[in-house]
Amino acid sequence: MATDQNKFQAIISHCKEYGFIFQSSEIYDGLSAVYDYGQYGAELKKNIRDYWWKSMTQMHENIVGIDSAIFMHPTIWKASGHVDNFSDPMIDNKDSNKRYRVDHLIEGFAETLAADAAAALIADMEALLKENDFAGLKKLIEDNQIKCAVSGTVNWTDVRQFNLMFSTQLGSVSEEASEIYLRPETAQGIFVNFLNVQKTGRMKIPFGIAQVGKAFRNEIVARQFVFRMREFEQMEMQFFIRPGTQKEWYAYWKEERMKWHQSLGLNPANLQYHDHVKLAHYADAAVDIEYNFPIGFKEVEGIHSRTDFDLSQHQKFSGKKMQYFDPEINQNYIPYVIETSIGLDRCCLMILSESYEEQDLSTADKQDSRVVLKFPAKLAPIKLAIFPLTKKDGLPEIAKELMASCKTSFYCFYEEKDAIGKRYRRQDAIGTPFCVTIDHQTKEDGTVTIRYRDTMEQERIPLAQVKEMVMRKIME
Amino acid sequence: MATDQNKFQAIISHCKEYGFIFQSSEIYDGLSAVYDYGQYGAELKKNIRDYWWKSMTQMHENIVGIDSAIFMHPTIWKASGHVDNFSDPMIDNKDSNKRYRVDHLIEGFAETLAADAAAALIADMEALLKENDFAGLKKLIEDNQIKCAVSGTVNWTDVRQFNLMFSTQLGSVSEEASEIYLRPETAQGIFVNFLNVQKTGRMKIPFGIAQVGKAFRNEIVARQFVFRMREFEQMEMQFFIRPGTQKEWYAYWKEERMKWHQSLGLNPANLQYHDHVKLAHYADAAVDIEYNFPIGFKEVEGIHSRTDFDLSQHQKFSGKKMQYFDPEINQNYIPYVIETSIGLDRCCLMILSESYEEQDLSTADKQDSRVVLKFPAKLAPIKLAIFPLTKKDGLPEIAKELMASCKTSFYCFYEEKDAIGKRYRRQDAIGTPFCVTIDHQTKEDGTVTIRYRDTMEQERIPLAQVKEMVMRKIME
Repeated sequence: MATDQNKFQAIISHCKEYGFIFQSSEIYDGLSAVYDYGQYGAELKKNIRDYWWKSMTQMHENIVGIDSAIFMHPTIWKASGHVDNFSDPMIDNKDSNKRYRVDHLIEGFAETLAADAAAALIADMEALLKENDFAGLKKLIEDNQIKCAVSGTVNWTDVRQFNLMFSTQLGSVSEEASEIYLRPETAQGIFVNFLNVQKTGRMKIPFGIAQVGKAFRNEIVARQFVFRMREFEQMEMQFFIRPGTQKEWYAYWKEERMKWHQSLGLNPANLQYHDHVKLAHYADAAVDIEYNFPIGFKEVEGIHSRTDFDLSQHQKFSGKKMQYFDPEINQNYIPYVIETSIGLDRCCLMILSESYEEQDLSTADKQDSRVVLKFPAKLAPIKLAIFPLTKKDGLPEIAKELMASCKTSFYCFYEEKDAIGKRYRRQDAIGTPFCVTIDHQTKEDGTVTIRYRDTMEQERIPLAQVKEMVMRKIME
Repeated sequence: MATDQNKFQAIISHCKEYGFIFQSSEIYDGLSAVYDYGQYGAELKKNIRDYWWKSMTQMHENIVGIDSAIFMHPTIWKASGHVDNFSDPMIDNKDSNKRYRVDHLIEGFAETLAADAAAALIADMEALLKENDFAGLKKLIEDNQIKCAVSGTVNWTDVRQFNLMFSTQLGSVSEEASEIYLRPETAQGIFVNFLNVQKTGRMKIPFGIAQVGKAFRNEIVARQFVFRMREFEQMEMQFFIRPGTQKEWYAYWKEERMKWHQSLGLNPANLQYHDHVKLAHYADAAVDIEYNFPIGFKEVEGIHSRTDFDLSQHQKFSGKKMQYFDPEINQNYIPYVIETSIGLDRCCLMILSESYEEQDLSTADKQDSRVVLKFPAKLAPIKLAIFPLTKKDGLPEIAKELMASCKTSFYCFYEEKDAIGKRYRRQDAIGTPFCVTIDHQTKEDGTVTIRYRDTMEQERIPLAQVKEMVMRKIME
């Protein structure tokens, strides 16, 4: 199965129906390619973010975290190459005034061709893109008579570059106001703070700096739900190393990051490496970790050997020495960098895709089905649901006592309405791994029914053991 | 002691020297009123954020969290009143081209006057501001011969309103691109998602929606370190209630939030209420919780009774019914709202101000002093520092074993260089509540020296008890 659009659409609907992800500004008919996380989505996203942060900083003695601002000095984006290079070639149809990304326009046309012809066209396009041959790209579009979907004509403007950074004006006095950009990546916030962190933290190479935060890209064709958004969240770590050691450290982080993904409980068959053949201007090696989304294998994380490109550029543009004195070899140098860069929103979508299951539970007697999100316990928004069987006979009191003792340690949910079976199903739909029911037997022998989400099995365990059992499962 | 500029400056220097807070883009000579959190500042900020989030959501059955985008539909800011009202009266000096906030210009001048004259001038200014009498304000400036600090002249433009929202362009096609704003508050992200959350979460009034996130204001005069920034982080909660119950719930949240601040270990004498006399257009009651910063009592949090203003406006501008059906009274209504709104950056500054102490430890024999940050253990960036006394005799091995067992549960720091006293002092300066030293006796009797930051007292405790002791203190 290459792609499964039905499953993808079902996940999107489920996210909306159960409070995971809403279209931004929905009551105003939405804002394109921007999304809001609802009550369960916000918890899922926070749990993934915290898990990454802990695994990077708390678990590594030589990696620390920072939290740099979205606003940065505009020269930083000159130095990083984003002002000059962070752009897509675009073309406008003169009749419809509609603008297209050149590669998307040609790829869309290629899909209408036979396989051989399509492959040849794509190969031609890629050669031209590599050379930045804009005149050639325009000619390719015209020669193939590629039409605008709106006007139906082949009346195209020249191909031009369109920068993906959002800009705004900082300051109030027009003479003093400066155009600044919303950061298109969090990495540069780490590079410009490299010396601050190294010196105040007395860090010794090799060491890393991690950060989580929002980044912004004015994507022309934003699509595929939270996979490609204009406002998104990155989790990046820059690992500073001695020049010449980049091959080993690249191999190390390539493996480490794959292990991290597997530690989320993902099926290893759903993860793969994809080596970059065409490298970015700053890299001497690069690989993606791809996940098998319902829309196919797509990038979730990139591991890049960035050389000393960024620090050298900042040394050049800022005039400040970006060097490290290595006491072991008694030398000054600009460190090399291995970067790990993961999209938090894509990571949420990955966990949702892996966890989402529609199950047919029909028996000879009756039709039945459920949707269950099989989140690992550590990522589930709610860890434990607590249900008194009925609203009377002192059962709510016992349930609330359990609630009070558990909620200081993990996220619990309390509900006393509707049939138990219905309550279980609602928890399945939001991925709660454990439900506990307090019934009349609880009053007699101090046991409760615990019901497991994945197997739907139930067993009786002592009330006094519930908290510890859940705590143990969360730590797994 | 009204204000203590020396202490304030000392805190700012300490934050930079010990990796808490750096000027943004420092190697490019900085970006005005924007700051980056370094390795310890990022942990402190995260700990405060997590503590607030947990106390709001996990601890309250009827409050859930969301995470809405910074980008929102531009009409939202029309509805909220920000497009029309979120502005400051400004005046430009024609000779220097320098722009001033009118109130700051007049206040600055008032400080040069005798107390009586100053009070009279401020009273005049406030009356004119209340009436939006711009011509009157200009006349007040001219009549008092208030000069521009740069040009030294009284040659002023008219007073004009200047909107504080940052704007940017979304989309690539000029005909389709729309001007959007960076949100100046997180609250509207909650209001526009009110129905989504209420319905998908099956919430019953009264209930709350909480969120943490960045907000942006193009402050003219940004100053006082992280107290007033152009990019900052808010922690807001909107509590939706039945109309007519706002007085009770306002009183409830006013008290609850003060308790929260006290739970951070703040001296109650450093906290006070400040009732708003002049209310914002949306409020029928409002109070600030102020903290006694070294620069005086200043707002950290606001509690506002916002009536049904925001939801009514969104109903009007979006055309969608923003109503709730209350099954208890069988009625549809637009809920009233009590808001609690706290600045995370100010909260960091509050904790730093409360915790910062310069201590003279001199004895008859020798001069000595230390700077210590007396963070509550739950907020400290690092909970436990682990020191082998020497680098040999198997002591590092024992220390690393302790490190491995503790770091899965809380943030630890390992160091084996320099004299123990020096290592203690470095931990004092970043606020680590506990240090443990492994020495030769540890090998004999399995005990370690634990050293307490605040008292500097040391005692021997079993190595096996260290983890549990720290865990207990963090939970306090």
